[in-house]
Amino acid sequence: MPIVTIQQFPRDLAQKRELARRITEAFEEVYGARPESVQVFFQEVDGEHWARGGVMGCDTPGD
Amino acid sequence: MPIVTIQQFPRDLAQKRELARRITEAFEEVYGARPESVQVFFQEVDGEHWARGGVMGCDTPGD
Amino acid sequence: MPIVTIQQFPRDLAQKRELARRITEAFEEVYGARPESVQVFFQEVDGEHWARGGVMGCDTPGD
Amino acid sequence: MPIVTIQQFPRDLAQKRELARRITEAFEEVYGARPESVQVFFQEVDGEHWARGGVMGCDTPGD
Amino acid sequence: MPIVTIQQFPRDLAQKRELARRITEAFEEVYGARPESVQVFFQEVDGEHWARGGVMGCDTPGD
Amino acid sequence: MPIVTIQQFPRDLAQKRELARRITEAFEEVYGARPESVQVFFQEVDGEHWARGGVMGCDTPGD
Repeated sequence: MPIVTIQQFPRDLAQKRELARRITEAFEEVYGARPESVQVFFQEVDGEHWARGGVMGCDTPGD
Repeated sequence: MPIVTIQQFPRDLAQKRELARRITEAFEEVYGARPESVQVFFQEVDGEHWARGGVMGCDTPGD
Repeated sequence: MPIVTIQQFPRDLAQKRELARRITEAFEEVYGARPESVQVFFQEVDGEHWARGGVMGCDTPGD
Repeated sequence: MPIVTIQQFPRDLAQKRELARRITEAFEEVYGARPESVQVFFQEVDGEHWARGGVMGCDTPGD
Repeated sequence: MPIVTIQQFPRDLAQKRELARRITEAFEEVYGARPESVQVFFQEVDGEHWARGGVMGCDTPGD
Repeated sequence: MPIVTIQQFPRDLAQKRELARRITEAFEEVYGARPESVQVFFQEVDGEHWARGGVMGCDTPGD
């Protein structure tokens, strides 16, 4: 622990890399966690597998 | 919130669209939730990534 | 399958009961699923364990 | 979206508040996400509900 | 990794301890995983937070 | 229930089959669960969707 699972729209690798770096740094600085104990999982979801307000993402103009 | 995550076999888009619509409507009518606050995620799983009774889905005749 | 996991604010049992009934009915009618195959899990979260916009739920006026 | 779910040992509210603030800020700065679109869920787990290396947390000296 | 999350009815600590031990052993023997890399999370759910077939667990005679 | 969700690196089908068999057997023998009540989900994650210590899996030599 800690285990961080992120449900998000697809992003390029450079953005995920930077986000994982910053989230892990936050755990180190706020919790005093060892960085090696922090794992981050990215679950990327497209608009055919996600709805808000009862409408699929692919049926609406973006999020 | 609410966040709804569904683990299911693959379904076509029309079925997921209708299901998301009906689930969101249930939150509105039963909880009084604003529809825009309801998000539904579909995690589709095939028979090579799911087992029941210790047997992979791909090794059994359907579910 | 299907497995439905709901992250939500606490609700009373009568509301959860009605929601589970309606969600299961939607799977039956839209997917043709057997009702016994549908499981619904309620994960209730209070404002000290959830944030939106970087602000904890307990620090804001409701959701 | 994005939805962030954190499985962690219990922490006090001040720490969770600061962590949620920093994680949300990272999504804004790295992804250009609107802060209101970011939700963070804290799932706190004690040593009687977590094991590593096949040993329950409550049977070992800390993590 | 691997991260194992178990949604189950409440069980006593001795049972969870033995289950975690056996699951971790399976990862070692089947995958060749290092035991320290295996984490198991127990999410215990009572009959007021779970439904099957559209009926809450607390409204039916057991599972 | 029980529902078991495994986040792991990709493995071949034969390994997942054997792991699911052994995990289900553990629930039977330790909890006395009926095997048909046990479902196992495999969520396979590659090194572009997982980080440890703030470093993406694809940027490090294995796990």
